[in-house]
Amino acid sequence: MESIIRANVNHVSSYGNDPYSEAAVSKFKEHFGDNIDVYFVFNGTAANVLGLKAITRSYNSIICAETSHIHVDECGAPEYFTGCKTLTLPTEDGKLYVDLIKQHLTGFGDQHHSQPKVISIAQPTELGTVYKPEEIQAIATFAHEHGMLLHMDGSRLSNAAASLKLTFKEITVDVGVDVLSFGGTKNGLMIGEAIVFFDKSLATDFKYIRKQGMQLGSKMRFIAAQFEALLSNDLWLRNARNANDMAKFLAGKIENIPEIKITQEVEANAVFAIIPREYISTLQEVYSFYVWSEEKSEVRWMTAFDTTKEDIENFVAEIEKICFSKL
Amino acid sequence: MESIIRANVNHVSSYGNDPYSEAAVSKFKEHFGDNIDVYFVFNGTAANVLGLKAITRSYNSIICAETSHIHVDECGAPEYFTGCKTLTLPTEDGKLYVDLIKQHLTGFGDQHHSQPKVISIAQPTELGTVYKPEEIQAIATFAHEHGMLLHMDGSRLSNAAASLKLTFKEITVDVGVDVLSFGGTKNGLMIGEAIVFFDKSLATDFKYIRKQGMQLGSKMRFIAAQFEALLSNDLWLRNARNANDMAKFLAGKIENIPEIKITQEVEANAVFAIIPREYISTLQEVYSFYVWSEEKSEVRWMTAFDTTKEDIENFVAEIEKICFSKL
Amino acid sequence: MESIIRANVNHVSSYGNDPYSEAAVSKFKEHFGDNIDVYFVFNGTAANVLGLKAITRSYNSIICAETSHIHVDECGAPEYFTGCKTLTLPTEDGKLYVDLIKQHLTGFGDQHHSQPKVISIAQPTELGTVYKPEEIQAIATFAHEHGMLLHMDGSRLSNAAASLKLTFKEITVDVGVDVLSFGGTKNGLMIGEAIVFFDKSLATDFKYIRKQGMQLGSKMRFIAAQFEALLSNDLWLRNARNANDMAKFLAGKIENIPEIKITQEVEANAVFAIIPREYISTLQEVYSFYVWSEEKSEVRWMTAFDTTKEDIENFVAEIEKICFSKL
Amino acid sequence: MESIIRANVNHVSSYGNDPYSEAAVSKFKEHFGDNIDVYFVFNGTAANVLGLKAITRSYNSIICAETSHIHVDECGAPEYFTGCKTLTLPTEDGKLYVDLIKQHLTGFGDQHHSQPKVISIAQPTELGTVYKPEEIQAIATFAHEHGMLLHMDGSRLSNAAASLKLTFKEITVDVGVDVLSFGGTKNGLMIGEAIVFFDKSLATDFKYIRKQGMQLGSKMRFIAAQFEALLSNDLWLRNARNANDMAKFLAGKIENIPEIKITQEVEANAVFAIIPREYISTLQEVYSFYVWSEEKSEVRWMTAFDTTKEDIENFVAEIEKICFSKL
Repeated sequence: MESIIRANVNHVSSYGNDPYSEAAVSKFKEHFGDNIDVYFVFNGTAANVLGLKAITRSYNSIICAETSHIHVDECGAPEYFTGCKTLTLPTEDGKLYVDLIKQHLTGFGDQHHSQPKVISIAQPTELGTVYKPEEIQAIATFAHEHGMLLHMDGSRLSNAAASLKLTFKEITVDVGVDVLSFGGTKNGLMIGEAIVFFDKSLATDFKYIRKQGMQLGSKMRFIAAQFEALLSNDLWLRNARNANDMAKFLAGKIENIPEIKITQEVEANAVFAIIPREYISTLQEVYSFYVWSEEKSEVRWMTAFDTTKEDIENFVAEIEKICFSKL
Repeated sequence: MESIIRANVNHVSSYGNDPYSEAAVSKFKEHFGDNIDVYFVFNGTAANVLGLKAITRSYNSIICAETSHIHVDECGAPEYFTGCKTLTLPTEDGKLYVDLIKQHLTGFGDQHHSQPKVISIAQPTELGTVYKPEEIQAIATFAHEHGMLLHMDGSRLSNAAASLKLTFKEITVDVGVDVLSFGGTKNGLMIGEAIVFFDKSLATDFKYIRKQGMQLGSKMRFIAAQFEALLSNDLWLRNARNANDMAKFLAGKIENIPEIKITQEVEANAVFAIIPREYISTLQEVYSFYVWSEEKSEVRWMTAFDTTKEDIENFVAEIEKICFSKL
Repeated sequence: MESIIRANVNHVSSYGNDPYSEAAVSKFKEHFGDNIDVYFVFNGTAANVLGLKAITRSYNSIICAETSHIHVDECGAPEYFTGCKTLTLPTEDGKLYVDLIKQHLTGFGDQHHSQPKVISIAQPTELGTVYKPEEIQAIATFAHEHGMLLHMDGSRLSNAAASLKLTFKEITVDVGVDVLSFGGTKNGLMIGEAIVFFDKSLATDFKYIRKQGMQLGSKMRFIAAQFEALLSNDLWLRNARNANDMAKFLAGKIENIPEIKITQEVEANAVFAIIPREYISTLQEVYSFYVWSEEKSEVRWMTAFDTTKEDIENFVAEIEKICFSKL
Repeated sequence: MESIIRANVNHVSSYGNDPYSEAAVSKFKEHFGDNIDVYFVFNGTAANVLGLKAITRSYNSIICAETSHIHVDECGAPEYFTGCKTLTLPTEDGKLYVDLIKQHLTGFGDQHHSQPKVISIAQPTELGTVYKPEEIQAIATFAHEHGMLLHMDGSRLSNAAASLKLTFKEITVDVGVDVLSFGGTKNGLMIGEAIVFFDKSLATDFKYIRKQGMQLGSKMRFIAAQFEALLSNDLWLRNARNANDMAKFLAGKIENIPEIKITQEVEANAVFAIIPREYISTLQEVYSFYVWSEEKSEVRWMTAFDTTKEDIENFVAEIEKICFSKL
């Protein structure tokens, strides 16, 4: 917030040619290495879709988990804007593995088939699990062996890095990621996401793709300024670590409630749990959260950069109240 | 063929305003009832894609079998041209069922999700199985209850009708189909497929969709003339019945070969079989056919309107020769 | 800015279901009447493109001025996202007139032609001129008589309203506008534009179009809060009036410089002028502005909500310095 | 027609892997040189659109004459399928010239602007005029100097070659054309057009573009066989020459009718003429032709490969009858 106020003071050039954008790009280079191209966009859907557009042509296909944000939560934007087919894979824990991916590696060179071009993974996954670096490397190597590229949806990458106690670089470019969506909004920014290209040749014409993709703002400095602040003085890490810690804190409390069963490893800032179906609507009167699976009565609780222990305790108290009342 | 020669004799108006097109449309009305709109296009992919485009907007999704032609064999044309997401379902026999479809019926009204709008089935399926009329009706009723439409890929509909001993009408509009791709090429036409709308209001602007879809020919009469011939004097039925009979004949022969296992009911003009992996390439030196699953060593053999018993006998003899040589 | 700080204080629901969004919509209703639908997006390109997408199908065409932002400055986003053809008209003053538009009103009902569906005008125009209400009404009436709709690019609508001393309502819905892009960024917002539908039936499925168009933010409240502030207490009017006044002030000063010729009526916040070619680069070393026409050596100078008389005087002094040095 | 009958006799591989396709490609190489790639499609719109798609990305623009088929007669298919913006230029005679084109060569490298990538010309033009080889060369050189490519819509290229008494090669690859739509339908084929790439690297992935563009037929041999016949024994030349001769014959007759004024040079198989407005509908009762400009009362009369002198004489007699009756 303070970073925006500073960016608001003086008139500068528009459309990203300004000192705030330059400073933000420098910060990205501190974290990811010098050999990158960074572009800012407004939201996570755009970061994913435009990054994918840059590395595909319309007759390609994109392989992803059945639970992936690009498949489930973007209202068909990837298909519409890239023209590509999305090929999904069922997963238990939200992660892709080489053996799983192989089943979609068919039809290379056959004109009747969309040509597989990109494997897209989320770090952390939509199920709150976190890829180990060697897991990412295995997928990247496999992709590159088949002339494909590895895209990472890192809308909450800070949470993964905090969880693994590794740098951004160690879990992206160092293990073979080609294009990254780097999230800001979910780690404290008001508005703003970044697309990081680790091979600059992939970004040659990206500025036109961004503009045609309706993601160029005249006052990009407000997004840049926020990123510059986030990536300075470990703010990103403190934010992410807090969210992760609060998720673990929540999970610890929940484990003591026999009616509720945690369904995924709590490795980042999400807790997935199956709770009695009749609790859900009562709890949603007070708290808003996402019902992950109506069928399984599974819910997702997310913690944030500013969640406090008190927030968690109040939330758990509310659940316990409901448990008690339903007895 | 003769029908084309007749259509070649005189100059007529172009782009479908000609007596051949009128006569062909009349034939379609004889078979499907008067309350239809029919449009001719060049191939089966276009018939499917443009029919789907007519009844969707880009934020919709289309539900289909994992084995469906629109998902597997059209190089992403449905996604590219409609903008819609294709949601697939795994099937054993190529057929969709209401219980299976239900799992994709989520997110109605939720702006994050592509809105399910069309269920697309193939009759016969890509696995050579044939929907019974009541199976189609069940899906249609379910679709309509949810504000959705039923699309049928009938690129080999003649084979299904011949197999079921029913009229076209009884397995389409009478059981709730909204839009049909009606195949010509696979039942003897040189070039040409048709799209049949059973609710004319769905086709209001279809002529523009066809033109923008690059499927309007200046000499549509050549396609129309072929359809007129195909739909007259039961030519379609004789063609399809022959293909079906030859498939059954082939299946009968194959059942006697212990090394080969037929994997799907032979209800139309396809025989699916698992054969020893090492036979495939040897057989493909003489005959061209499609390997359905490399993994399972499963192949698809199609019969045609002009396949003869002798063709089948030669084919089976070739297989037996291979069996013998591999002993 | 202050409005954002307030919006930053508490956690609220995301994706626009929050009190800030409601308050902003109420403000829009105060200005435009109750019978509207309002959606917020990130930038002006998106406001135009998504508004146009909502009221077209891909086989339609959109008629606009050759100088229009949607034709010149959006990198083909309208074509890409709507699929429509953009038909342009040459204009002297940036305005469309019925007689001019008529030449594109051909091919209705002819399948070979994109079907004209939308007339899109900018208020003020890209040349800084302002439509009188009766001019808008004439185009709207003409559009509606031909089954077409009137879209207005109002990225600087506040400047037009201030110039005409009329309300927003009097220059939009009251004179027949169907869909409006309402600008925030150019009148002081950090990020944010709005799309206003004056016929709610046009917006039925707009939330999906916005999401698929990558313009739904999880923290839309930050945009809404800014709009709520802008539309309260005549802030919009004070901002716009200042910009207009400063443009007039600039024009008055410029008129006294014989080397420079003003080329368009100064009715909003833009001054168009032809200046000696050799001045441009020298002036651009100190000030950034847009060269409208290399060929004619015509430049565009824009004033803003926060431009001061001192800013103008400094700018003019710089020009005079250059004039002097070039003698 | 005979060529099709031959192609109908035996079963062959589908989707273009057959001896008919190979023979047709060989014929193209005889005419255009060995260093080409040729693909068959169903109609002229597809030939243009898919050729353009192969050499553009969605943020490009395509420069063409205001009268061009790709702008006027394809219902927005180029925009929809390529995503590109079409930039038009007004012309007197249907031809582009370098000086004219220059005005659209702006905004290179500016992210707000569609990036000009292709100049598309028609040979002969839609106004029946024919480019001289040096005129084409000048445009090609200009295009290549600016990193652009030259596309030629040659749906009636045979008529141009016959008119110029030059080979196909001399008016395409020899003068710098990069991609060509080569017409079959307008020179006697039932269905079928070809796309010729003179730089094979432009066609690397074209088979996927064709399939996704819904232009791959399972029985492409029927198109190939027709082309093979057309390009053999000067059939193309005899057809085209007859059409051209008949246009000249018609023009000669018309010149003697004082009420009618020929408006364009008759260089191929089209005659453009202004005739009294009240004649048009009367004449259209007997003959179908296109009214080029309602405003100017200008019509277009096309001759064909099979038009006879008698046809022309009857047509002119009909006009004279109308002239007489209107006295």
